[in-house]
Amino acid sequence: MISSSESLRALITELSNLPGIGNKSAARLAYYIANAPKEKIEALVDSIKKVSSNIKRCKVCFTFSDNEICDICSSDKRDKSKIMVVENERDMLAYENTGEYKGVYHVLGGALSPLLGIGPSDLKIKELMARLSQDVTEVIIATNSSIEGETTATYLAKLIKQLGIKVSRIASGVPVGGDIENIDDATLMKAYNGRQVL
Amino acid sequence: MISSSESLRALITELSNLPGIGNKSAARLAYYIANAPKEKIEALVDSIKKVSSNIKRCKVCFTFSDNEICDICSSDKRDKSKIMVVENERDMLAYENTGEYKGVYHVLGGALSPLLGIGPSDLKIKELMARLSQDVTEVIIATNSSIEGETTATYLAKLIKQLGIKVSRIASGVPVGGDIENIDDATLMKAYNGRQVL
Repeated sequence: MISSSESLRALITELSNLPGIGNKSAARLAYYIANAPKEKIEALVDSIKKVSSNIKRCKVCFTFSDNEICDICSSDKRDKSKIMVVENERDMLAYENTGEYKGVYHVLGGALSPLLGIGPSDLKIKELMARLSQDVTEVIIATNSSIEGETTATYLAKLIKQLGIKVSRIASGVPVGGDIENIDDATLMKAYNGRQVL
Repeated sequence: MISSSESLRALITELSNLPGIGNKSAARLAYYIANAPKEKIEALVDSIKKVSSNIKRCKVCFTFSDNEICDICSSDKRDKSKIMVVENERDMLAYENTGEYKGVYHVLGGALSPLLGIGPSDLKIKELMARLSQDVTEVIIATNSSIEGETTATYLAKLIKQLGIKVSRIASGVPVGGDIENIDDATLMKAYNGRQVL
């Protein structure tokens, strides 16, 4: 990227290192920042700094939080008897956005992967097991539908069943609005095997 | 967007106000910022602040610059006898990225638009005319191929021709790799009218 200004060039480089921001978007953002009123950019910078320096992990579910315990774990409107296990905060956000789920979460911080050398002790599995008191009636495993996600699900299901707690796995199949002819074999087999009686 | 943290929610809102950043990208960026090492985010914040508080307009061509005169206008490797007139810095950057053009630029700051009430005095036209000394042999008008861009080009061409300086307009036609059957009528007519003898 060539630009007439050293500081703009530096900003474009910094921005293009962000996830999902290519060279063109980085340039567009940099020019926007150069053009925008200073107060507007100061507000943006303050928000960034606040998150970068103050954010914590919730001591219960390990999602991002401003306090020791996150807003969801500390809410009395959430059903503490259901724990949904997710790989990361983005997956948790995706479920939160549906507005359907009223239980609480547990963020593992990834999935088991022998290939990448990620074992049970690298994830918040010990911490999940410690949460499984008598009050918990169901653990919903919402790890990804990848090899790593499935491995993690199987591993967790085995551990949790030993405690006599109900374990469920989110359904895998044809996405809503999905065209069957364009869907891969593995998904179609999952959809077939997971068929439900009407 | 729902998130477990007040400060993350605020950051997601700030980020989604940026051009080309939707809700999903904003969330992804916010989680990246929460996860990334503080030093990395500090470097990003410093770059943003530097541009937002220190950037100037070049006194010659009116592009963004760290100094009174931008790197391009002050370079002795650039051909000062050719001035390319562009609407904004992003268009200038697009031409710079081709690496072909060795002249200098003039950033108008927009295009004439009676509809939006943008007249000649709202653009850097007076400043362009003041640059047209004997040393300038050609002015290339590279405003957009929109109604506003064309109006601006016609207006400028008339003014500059009076000074006896060569004025050219960038070609309009079928984009390289473009499929003629998918191209709009106006572009096809431009391509036909602008045809060149082989």
